[in-house]
Amino acid sequence: MFRGKEIRASPIGFVRRKVKEEDIKDKSLVCSIIVKKGYEKALEGIEDFSHIYVIFWMHEISEAERRTLKTHPRGRIDLPLLGVFATRSPLRPNPIGLTIVELLERKGNTLTIRGLDAFDGTPVIDIKPCNRWDIIKNVRVPKWWVKLEKEKEGGD
Amino acid sequence: MFRGKEIRASPIGFVRRKVKEEDIKDKSLVCSIIVKKGYEKALEGIEDFSHIYVIFWMHEISEAERRTLKTHPRGRIDLPLLGVFATRSPLRPNPIGLTIVELLERKGNTLTIRGLDAFDGTPVIDIKPCNRWDIIKNVRVPKWWVKLEKEKEGGD
Repeated sequence: MFRGKEIRASPIGFVRRKVKEEDIKDKSLVCSIIVKKGYEKALEGIEDFSHIYVIFWMHEISEAERRTLKTHPRGRIDLPLLGVFATRSPLRPNPIGLTIVELLERKGNTLTIRGLDAFDGTPVIDIKPCNRWDIIKNVRVPKWWVKLEKEKEGGD
Repeated sequence: MFRGKEIRASPIGFVRRKVKEEDIKDKSLVCSIIVKKGYEKALEGIEDFSHIYVIFWMHEISEAERRTLKTHPRGRIDLPLLGVFATRSPLRPNPIGLTIVELLERKGNTLTIRGLDAFDGTPVIDIKPCNRWDIIKNVRVPKWWVKLEKEKEGGD
C-alpha cells in the first residue's frame, strides 16, 4: 500500500529549443530533449520507434494555479467551464504534461523531436515508446472538442 | 528556468480493484479510480470522453529498481536488451505508469474504467482526456514489438 509516501521525481533531461514562448503550440516545430548523460544507455533502441510519449513537469505552474479545479478549455469563455481533468489545461493539481511527438533522430543523449508543446528548459520526467496498442480506434469526444477540431482543420 | 527545484506530486486518487496481482495485465478487466473528494469538481465533463489517460505512480518500485538502465521487454531474454526508455517496463528512473483506458462511467468522484494495468492501491497522479489528435496514423515499431503483437493476436 501507498501509506502516504512522498512522490518525488527527478528530471531525466531537459527540453532545448529556440522559439518564442507563444509558438510552442505549433506542432510542426522541431526541438530537442537533452537526456542527462547518466541516462544515455536508457535510450538504446528508442530510435526504432517513430513516436514517443514525452512526460514533462510544467515547473512554471504556481502553487496557486495547481489549486485550479475548473477551467474553460484554452481560456475560451465560448467553450464550457469544465473540470481540469476533462481538459488538457496546464492548470492541474500535478502539472504533468503529456505529448506524443515524432522522434526524428537520436544521437547519443540527444533526441530530435517534432511536436512538443513545452518551453525551453522544461524538465522531462519520463519517455516511453508509442506502440500500436496505444492507437484507439473509436475515440468519442464531446461537442466542444469537435468545435476546436473543426476550427483547426478550417485553419481558423 | 528549472534551477533544481523539487518535483513533488500528490496523489489525486487511488486505484481500487479486487483481482490477483498477476491478472492486472488483462486489459478486459474493469476497475475503479476513487478520486479524492476535494478533486471531484475537477472531473466535471470527463464523462463525455470515451477514453482517458491514467498517469500513476508505481510506488512499489524500489530505489534500486529505479536505477535500472537496460532491460529485456517483459523480462524475456529472447527479446533484445534495451534501454528502459525504449520499453514500457515499470523499472525506470521515475516509476510513472501511463495507460489509455476506456471510461465506462463517472459517478461523483468514482471513475469506472476498463484496461488499467495497475495494482489496487496505486496512487493516481493525473488524468487527461484522450482526443482525436492523440491518434497517430502511421506508428512505426521495432521488430521485437511486432513479435509481441503477433503472439498476442495469435493468442499465444
